[in-house]
Amino acid sequence: MSQHPAHGKPLDQVDTPSLLVDLDRLEANIQRMADFAAEHTVALRPHIKTHKCPEVARLQREAGAVGFTCAKVSEAEVFARAGFTDLLIANQITGPVKIDRLTDLAREARLTAAVDNPDNLVNLDRACADKGVRLGVLVEVDLGMKRCGVQPGPAVLELAAQAEDLSHLDFRGLQAYEGHLVLLEDPDERAEQVREAFRPLEQVIADLEAAGLSPEMVSGGGTGTYDTAGAETPLTELQVGSYVFMDATYGPLRPEFAPALSVSSTVVSRPVPERLVTDAGLKALTSEFGWPELLGGIQAEMNYLSEEHGVLTLADPGRVELEAGDRVRFRPSHVCTTVNLHDQLIVHRDGRVVDVWPIAARGCVQ
Amino acid sequence: MSQHPAHGKPLDQVDTPSLLVDLDRLEANIQRMADFAAEHTVALRPHIKTHKCPEVARLQREAGAVGFTCAKVSEAEVFARAGFTDLLIANQITGPVKIDRLTDLAREARLTAAVDNPDNLVNLDRACADKGVRLGVLVEVDLGMKRCGVQPGPAVLELAAQAEDLSHLDFRGLQAYEGHLVLLEDPDERAEQVREAFRPLEQVIADLEAAGLSPEMVSGGGTGTYDTAGAETPLTELQVGSYVFMDATYGPLRPEFAPALSVSSTVVSRPVPERLVTDAGLKALTSEFGWPELLGGIQAEMNYLSEEHGVLTLADPGRVELEAGDRVRFRPSHVCTTVNLHDQLIVHRDGRVVDVWPIAARGCVQ
Repeated sequence: MSQHPAHGKPLDQVDTPSLLVDLDRLEANIQRMADFAAEHTVALRPHIKTHKCPEVARLQREAGAVGFTCAKVSEAEVFARAGFTDLLIANQITGPVKIDRLTDLAREARLTAAVDNPDNLVNLDRACADKGVRLGVLVEVDLGMKRCGVQPGPAVLELAAQAEDLSHLDFRGLQAYEGHLVLLEDPDERAEQVREAFRPLEQVIADLEAAGLSPEMVSGGGTGTYDTAGAETPLTELQVGSYVFMDATYGPLRPEFAPALSVSSTVVSRPVPERLVTDAGLKALTSEFGWPELLGGIQAEMNYLSEEHGVLTLADPGRVELEAGDRVRFRPSHVCTTVNLHDQLIVHRDGRVVDVWPIAARGCVQ
Repeated sequence: MSQHPAHGKPLDQVDTPSLLVDLDRLEANIQRMADFAAEHTVALRPHIKTHKCPEVARLQREAGAVGFTCAKVSEAEVFARAGFTDLLIANQITGPVKIDRLTDLAREARLTAAVDNPDNLVNLDRACADKGVRLGVLVEVDLGMKRCGVQPGPAVLELAAQAEDLSHLDFRGLQAYEGHLVLLEDPDERAEQVREAFRPLEQVIADLEAAGLSPEMVSGGGTGTYDTAGAETPLTELQVGSYVFMDATYGPLRPEFAPALSVSSTVVSRPVPERLVTDAGLKALTSEFGWPELLGGIQAEMNYLSEEHGVLTLADPGRVELEAGDRVRFRPSHVCTTVNLHDQLIVHRDGRVVDVWPIAARGCVQ
């Protein structure tokens, strides 16, 4: 591949706010998760919702990912066209417009979708039959997250049997995501609750096997719980996403992964010594998991983010020399939604740009 | 103009989540604000941060807008190239990279920027001189919002005089934004606090006039406070943005503007009768001003938005027939950040698409 025209540019010559990724740390994170998966013989099907970037997925594939997880059909379209052809859409695909779009894409890629409803299975099968395509399905089991999915028990078996009977669907197994546990602070409690949440799945799988419906895939797992989920549950593959970049929320829970993503920002005003105003607001950094963290060892409290400003109070104004025009960096508090605000990743190493990667699936919410 | 290929399509054939704008309501909102401005002889310089869409700006211009307000240089680039050539960038432009970009754009448009710092004035002037361009500046006065700007008093006069003296800058007046007051609930208190916040500006303006620095523009005002700000303060122009679309936060404060924007969503699962799960999450609807509002008279409490799901508890499940595949709509709680998540506006009238407008400045945070 040829070099990007920005290759070699010092980072401080890149306009702000920009989304920066430290390539050394990104590569180390990808390798670390790949090593874990290899050691514990669990497959990796990383979730692309975090990076939405085919270049990052290529690194994950080189490190052994067996396929990828998407949240949306429109994300799967982008990744299929970028050459990723084994894609799990980890959600229910409902309504005629979306099912039409999904089954169109099934012509181009090996797709698997989550299901939790018998009518939906019928609708999916009919659309596949109309177009002469096949679709794999995973029955989603609710482990206590209380979002989608059926309860562990007979409903799983019924959906699996129905999927197996339908002519254009392939029952491939189960999806079970412990999303309600990924941010539990205490690591021992987190591990114990993960073991407990997955326990009912053992009986479900035994029942499926007894019925001749042995699941070929059991897919789930998040960055906060990957180790227990990958090594001590029936999961055959992990859908981890955030580990590639990490953020201020996941960081303290998973120090074995390095924070690789930051948002650069310029000081636009310091109207009084204690107040620092920067050019990165809610349109460059999300806040639903809390404020982003100001980096560089500057002690400051975030007063608020408005749409295009970060407003901070410095703890010790006399020791901070920043003035209008100077640069700072923030660690996002929620990397997945922050990445979705930006069109490209500025990839850097040793303070210089080495590449610029389009966030090709940014905004793909459909 | 030729019709968009989607013209005439029923809204329920448009994939979800999509950002929908009711054209009748949009036009009525634009006309209502234009009527207010005409009646009170205050100019309208609408803020494009809300819609980021040249087609909406064209409607505002047809209704009499004298120019437009942008938050960022990159937004101004998009609007200048779409034919809007009198642009106020209502923020401080600092640092060499951004100033370079601003002064490049000054070749194409009549630009005005906010300033609150003498060094910044020098840097702006030098860059303008290098390129042989001119830049207008407004001295930003802090009315109590505690973000950017200098306090009303001698600092304003000093900056104005400095700008006037610099060879490539034009002192055009003041910017004063009552952003800390726009969401005050009680209308009388809101009006009274706006009058009070602007009072110190009267002396500032008198001092400027006495020094031969009479401001040609005094720019500020938000949708929550436009009436008092436009009719009872020294503002010569209003930078209102949200009134075009409105949202669940501004709605109750300003019932004279009609809610024109919604996000369509599909029910992906109803795993138990009381739980409704939809396909619009934090990547389609923002939450910093609270949860979006479910429309259609369905009584439900939002449990949470995850990245790609809305999870709601229905108040009276027995009376709600929604099932997987059905459609709902949400009113955003913060329209400006929600619009920034989407690439296009589906423009509708009488339940059908009449046009699709690109949100051309989406993601323009630089």
